[in-house]
Amino acid sequence: MVRIGVVLSGCGFLDGAEIYESTLTLFFLDQAGADVTIMAPNITQHHVMNHLTQEVTEESRNVLVESARLARGKIKDLATIQADDLDGLIMPGGFGAAKNLSTIAFDGSKGAINSDLADLIQALHQAKKPIGAICIAPAVLSKALADRGITLTIGNDSDTANAIQTMGNKHQESSADNIVVDENNRIVSTAAYMCAASIGEAGSGIEKLVNRIVAMAEKS
Amino acid sequence: MVRIGVVLSGCGFLDGAEIYESTLTLFFLDQAGADVTIMAPNITQHHVMNHLTQEVTEESRNVLVESARLARGKIKDLATIQADDLDGLIMPGGFGAAKNLSTIAFDGSKGAINSDLADLIQALHQAKKPIGAICIAPAVLSKALADRGITLTIGNDSDTANAIQTMGNKHQESSADNIVVDENNRIVSTAAYMCAASIGEAGSGIEKLVNRIVAMAEKS
Repeated sequence: MVRIGVVLSGCGFLDGAEIYESTLTLFFLDQAGADVTIMAPNITQHHVMNHLTQEVTEESRNVLVESARLARGKIKDLATIQADDLDGLIMPGGFGAAKNLSTIAFDGSKGAINSDLADLIQALHQAKKPIGAICIAPAVLSKALADRGITLTIGNDSDTANAIQTMGNKHQESSADNIVVDENNRIVSTAAYMCAASIGEAGSGIEKLVNRIVAMAEKS
Repeated sequence: MVRIGVVLSGCGFLDGAEIYESTLTLFFLDQAGADVTIMAPNITQHHVMNHLTQEVTEESRNVLVESARLARGKIKDLATIQADDLDGLIMPGGFGAAKNLSTIAFDGSKGAINSDLADLIQALHQAKKPIGAICIAPAVLSKALADRGITLTIGNDSDTANAIQTMGNKHQESSADNIVVDENNRIVSTAAYMCAASIGEAGSGIEKLVNRIVAMAEKS
């Protein structure tokens, strides 16, 4: 059984992890027979957004606590996870990846990244363990692995594609139902809700990503 | 294209809609080519639970606003939906169904049910449109259609099964990867996280339920 980590960033696409991407990642990991560890940082969300009105609210919520909704309570503090605990990692998207796991939503290619996440990603990459990134998460991965020349997709959004290139990596256009695989660097990405028109389209890319990450992890 | 409504009750299994059940319902409805309307009541949640500690918090959240997270903002107030707008209805589970859509979590078979939901269910049933219920939602459906002799499953929980029978309906045991179909009453139910050991097991039953509801709605 390969051990795959899933990094969440809250619960809801405007201020946390994209719910469909996270759930479908967990569903296809289960189908693939993976041993899954869900994790999130124990930090306050950048902000809380009302998903009906798309307005920022006065509330304060914690990323680990809200991510626990998406994990049915079975979640670990990201800071406690080491590369040795995992055979691979998958990062679903949602604005939480760009607002809570990093500041890429506000600062683009100059954004900061959560240091525990950066450490985990760099250690996994060093150990040649596969990493998958969905939706906007490839931009976060690009920050953690800046100047490595890794190839990623975020679909066809030119601003984010340019930010990835400014970080010293490569962008490849792709549709949401497909994946981009960087075999040498053992990195897989899919655009999902960066450009998906439906949950099925996002799910198609996520299923391919999950299966490829599990296959790569099995060969490690 | 058949028009299927999905009734949510918040976002998170302890105080709202079960996230995996809701997402997989929407995923399989998309795969089946249905035209989906997501809805929730515009009411305050019974309470908010911290999903990491399983403790009740001091917060207050709105069912429609939190359900909007699960709908990516595309959601309607349940009170505005009529039976004529739909060819069928599916109710995912989670404690929200038993705490926000009804008081069944506290009052069992004597529990009350949201009157807009009861009206919608009764009008759909009267019009012979199919209704699907997942996890604990069959108990809510049993309340809305009390004394009709409909057959439902909530898996194998004897207290809830007894409550369904006390409401004048029938309970049939089932595993989470399967469905119980009441052809005459056009009702389909699946136990999901009432007894599922994994997201895949719940998903298997939900996929069957969605496909059966869509097939029944197409024949209407």
